[in-house]
Parts: sequence; structure tokens; C-alpha cells
Amino acid sequence: MQINPPYLMFLGDVHDQLAAKTAQGIVDWRAEWCVGQLRLPNCKADLGIADMTIAGAKAKGVKTLIVGVANAGGVLPDHWTSVIVEAIEAGMDVASGLHTKLGSKPEIAAAAAKHGRTLFDVRHSDMTFATGKGDKRPGLRLLTVGTDCSAGKKYTALALEKEMRARGLDADFRATGQTGVFISGRGCAIDAVVADFISGAVEWIAPAADANHWDLIEGQGSLFHPSFAGVSMGLLHGAQPDAFVVCHEPTRTTMRGVKTPLPSIADVIDLTLRCGKLTNPAIKPLGIAVNTKALGEAEAKKYLADLSAEYGLPATDPIRFGVGVLVDKLVADYPQSGKLARVG
Amino acid sequence: MQINPPYLMFLGDVHDQLAAKTAQGIVDWRAEWCVGQLRLPNCKADLGIADMTIAGAKAKGVKTLIVGVANAGGVLPDHWTSVIVEAIEAGMDVASGLHTKLGSKPEIAAAAAKHGRTLFDVRHSDMTFATGKGDKRPGLRLLTVGTDCSAGKKYTALALEKEMRARGLDADFRATGQTGVFISGRGCAIDAVVADFISGAVEWIAPAADANHWDLIEGQGSLFHPSFAGVSMGLLHGAQPDAFVVCHEPTRTTMRGVKTPLPSIADVIDLTLRCGKLTNPAIKPLGIAVNTKALGEAEAKKYLADLSAEYGLPATDPIRFGVGVLVDKLVADYPQSGKLARVG
Repeated sequence: MQINPPYLMFLGDVHDQLAAKTAQGIVDWRAEWCVGQLRLPNCKADLGIADMTIAGAKAKGVKTLIVGVANAGGVLPDHWTSVIVEAIEAGMDVASGLHTKLGSKPEIAAAAAKHGRTLFDVRHSDMTFATGKGDKRPGLRLLTVGTDCSAGKKYTALALEKEMRARGLDADFRATGQTGVFISGRGCAIDAVVADFISGAVEWIAPAADANHWDLIEGQGSLFHPSFAGVSMGLLHGAQPDAFVVCHEPTRTTMRGVKTPLPSIADVIDLTLRCGKLTNPAIKPLGIAVNTKALGEAEAKKYLADLSAEYGLPATDPIRFGVGVLVDKLVADYPQSGKLARVG
Repeated sequence: MQINPPYLMFLGDVHDQLAAKTAQGIVDWRAEWCVGQLRLPNCKADLGIADMTIAGAKAKGVKTLIVGVANAGGVLPDHWTSVIVEAIEAGMDVASGLHTKLGSKPEIAAAAAKHGRTLFDVRHSDMTFATGKGDKRPGLRLLTVGTDCSAGKKYTALALEKEMRARGLDADFRATGQTGVFISGRGCAIDAVVADFISGAVEWIAPAADANHWDLIEGQGSLFHPSFAGVSMGLLHGAQPDAFVVCHEPTRTTMRGVKTPLPSIADVIDLTLRCGKLTNPAIKPLGIAVNTKALGEAEAKKYLADLSAEYGLPATDPIRFGVGVLVDKLVADYPQSGKLARVG
């Protein structure tokens, strides 16, 4: 599964900007792939990029129409179908993050069959994976893990990719969630995989690579989240990380959606090391990434300095202060890290 | 999902006894539900129960035809279809452990729709679960865990049910795998569930119960198996066990299907306690169940005695020596365990 850029971003007629969160994430991280947006009358979201018709997008070389919006219930409204069919007829693939599968609409399925185009339903996984093998693969790998869900794991991995590439390092973001798949054009939503194949899917997502290449793997959930720890465990075993970054949101007291108390960063480091050693005995913590949005600037700096002293690891807020300190340590700890041979 | 007994066991024309392993397991543990077997010409398996036609089974009150055999590739041969349709026309539900879904055969789907019968594809999960909540449910729970896959977890849970019921204790086996689902008439193959819902599915499999009732939950995989630890982790969190039994096969050096070394029993106890405390802080090991088939009688007894001394826990081979010592400790440690109000 490879979603081919460049993209035309289809926003339908969603009612607010939040409904276009996935599309916005793609524009934030892959602006160069997003040549335009297509909005229906009364659309209340705006990605701040050029409005464009299907014909206009085709003229610009667009290869894929991205349905990167969330409707109530994740359904695909009937009145969006004609735009999607038009894109297919213009030679585009279509990728959607909706719950409704694109091919469940007969007009869309028929058009894709007729024109030989691919439909990607990123929220679903029709792929067949092998079970995980646990054999150590060549290449360096970093996994972002969390004290909870939604603690900045995707953002941190993407920020690391950006900073590492800016320093000429050979690194690729590896997606394990829906938005990440659109951003990288590859990967799969790991929580949608059949349970038996979690670690096997991750072995596919971050396959054998050059010995000095870094895969920066997006974590999911938390080993301490009673709903999703199974996913986090399989992801850890499949990722075989050499290094991990703990992502944390300091104002939460219970984990998202449940009454379970938040674990400490020390707990997360300890259990990640304990379980991660199964498939990579060399696993080490690299640093801590904190979402300090709820803290003032001085307070945030003090909080991060205290954490850094406590754990003997760099601590930063990737949004506020960047991930430079994490990459500094990565380069120091892994001097073998490869340089980019290509333009990133 | 509730598969209603009594059962007629359909063996088709499988080529050997091993292909009827699931059916044999059902007869071993639920002989009273298995009123007969139906075999096609050239069938090489035999469950040692009465051969019976659909009409004969109907006369005996059979409610479900069980397709409990494994063919090459798990496919449903076309020439089995007419028997299945005949069972449906006679008013039976049909439950299958094959990979091919029953409803994918148009004649079977049509017959089930026409006669209002239910088709169970035990290997698949079309059920919708909530995500796990982690809230402590009333009732006592025991989980069998393993140093590896196929280490006796199902057998141990079933043997505990039998022994506990024989002592008048209120206990139910809870299935998390295909054979177990046929044996208990309920449950689901947890490894076929979408990853996000592993612990939620287990919360459904072993729901809130009387405070003194025991659920004996069939474990899967191992927290140390690089292919399946995600399943084991979600199962542990969803099961919220008060007690667990470690199942072990002493002659293995690597885990099934991979090159990973077998963990020690101490490792398994330690990590199970560590992770299990997330959803049940009272979790404790109850004992050790060993498959000593490869050892002589005296050697097996010495091995178990040594284990018992080392861990301060009862150790037994459930097949060779029964699970009496485990139930002795359970009754001693949990004097509140409820008595059967019904005939088990």
C-alpha cells in the first residue's frame, strides 16, 4: 500500500475546522504534497491552500484525492460521491479516513474498476500480514511511547524526522495511525489490524533497512492504558527499537477515557525497557517529550529542566522548543547514524 | 453469541483423526452435549460416539451442527454443503471453525435466511465490542498464562472447572479460542478480534458476576512471545484476574515458531504481576501447571516437587496428576469462593 502524492485535499462540506484535523496534519507536515483543496458549498473548513477543481488538480499532476475529514459517525455522505467519481475518472486514486469504505458505494467501486484506480481505506486494514517473527532486522529504529494516548507520539516522531533530515541524517517517519499514513503515504492503522498480527504488521511497516538508517516509528496508546496496552505491546515488539522517546502530558491525572491513574515517566521507561528487550536487548531511552501547552513559558522550562535532571535525559516540548536536544543525544549515542544520500 | 447444545458433530470426510482435533476436544469436555457424529463416506476420523443422520439428530433434540474439523487451508469443501443445508432445513443452527465463512456459500446463506437459523463462524469475529474500560468488575477470576503458546492453558482452565464443580464450587470456563468457544458455547477467538478491542472483548467474555463466582479464563500466547504478546497483554488487562496459573512445557528451549528463548517461570510470574496490577492490584500466582509428557513418572514428580519448593506454589501436571492441589490452594486462599446453587 503506497498512497501516491501529490494530493488534492477534499474537504466536502464539513461543519468546522476540527473536522478537517487529519487534512490539516497532512498540510502541516507535507505542504509540498498538497497542491490544493476542493471544498463543496457551505464547507466551514479551510486549509489555507489554493482552492482547485478536479480538472485543475489533474493539470497540476495530482495523483490522489484525499478524503481527510471526519464526519459524524465517519460516514461518507451520498452527495460527496460525484466528486470522488469525477476524480477517479480523471485518473486519480482516492484515499479516505472515513469509517465507510469507499468501495461500499457502488458508483465509486464501479468507477475504480473501470479506470483501474486504487481505493485506500486507511481506517481499515484489508492487508494480510504474517505473524511477527521477532528476528532482529538491520537498521536503527526509534519508537515514541507514551504515558497515555494522545500525548504527542505522532508529532514527536514527525518533528524528529524533520530535524534529522535538516541535519542531513537518513531518517524516515513510519506511520502506525491514520493521519500518519496520509503523511507518509505508507503504513497502516495498527489498531485496526487483527490482534494476532500486531507485531507482524509493525515488522512490515518498518522493514529491514540500511544498517545506519533510522526509522522513526509512531507509537500508539500506552503499555499502561487498560484499553490499548495490547496494541502498544505488539507495537513495541514489532518495532524492535534501539531508542525510545517517552511522550507525556503533565496535567492529566487519569488516562484518556478511563479511570486508571496516569503512570509515571519512570514506570513507562522501566516497563518499556523490560518488554522491549525481548526483541532488542540494546533498547535505551533517548529522551522525554512533553506537551507543556498548559504551562507558562518559565514554568515549562523549569519543568523540563527538573525532568532532565531527574532522569538524566534530554527533555523538551517539541512544539515549543523543538527536538534539537533529542537529536543531539541521538547523534552522540549513535555516531554511526547514516547521512542522507538523497534529497529528503 | 451463544451456541446452543446439544450438538451433532459433523466430520465430513477428513483424512485423519488429527483433522478432528477440535471435535475431539468438545467430546472430551462436553460429552453430554455431543449426541452423535455425522461422517461422509471415506471419513477417517471417529469420535467414538453414535453415528447419526440429520433426521436422527433432530429426533434427539439436537440444536446445532458443529463443523469442528480442520481441512487443508481451512476451506469448506463444496460437497459438504448439502449436509449443512439439510441441518438448517431441519431447524439447526450451524457453527464452524473453518476459515471459509459458512455464509460465503450462497446455498447455506439462503437456507439460514429462509429458516431463521444462526451461522457461527468461530474463527472470525463479526462482533462489535467496546474498548476495554479497566473498571473492576464483581466476581472472582483466574487466568491461565504461559511461558509459551500451546503450553496447556486451555486444558488447565477446563480441568480446574471440572474439579471445582466436582467440589460444588461455582465456576465457569471462559473461552478465548476456537475450541474453547465450542466447548463453552460462548466466548470468542480473541486473536481474531481487531487490536483496539482485545481487552474490551475479554471484559465481555468474562462479565460482571456474583462476588463469589469464579471465571476460569483460557489464556492465549505469552507476554514473552514476540508474535502474540499483544494479545496476551490485552487479555491480562481485560481478564482482571485475582489469581493466575503459569502453564509450562519443560523441554522447549525456544518459543513456538520463532527463535526467541523460552522465558523462565519466574519471569512470567513477575511480568504478569507487574502488568496485571494495572486492572487488579490484588493479582497473585496460584500455582504452576506443567506438561510433563516428555518425562518419566518419577522424573516428573521430582521436577514438580522441585518447582513447588522453588516458587512456594503448588505445581502439577493437570493430565497426569490432576489439578486437586491447585483447587486446594484456591479454596484456602479464597475462602469466600461460592458454592454451586445449580446442578453443574
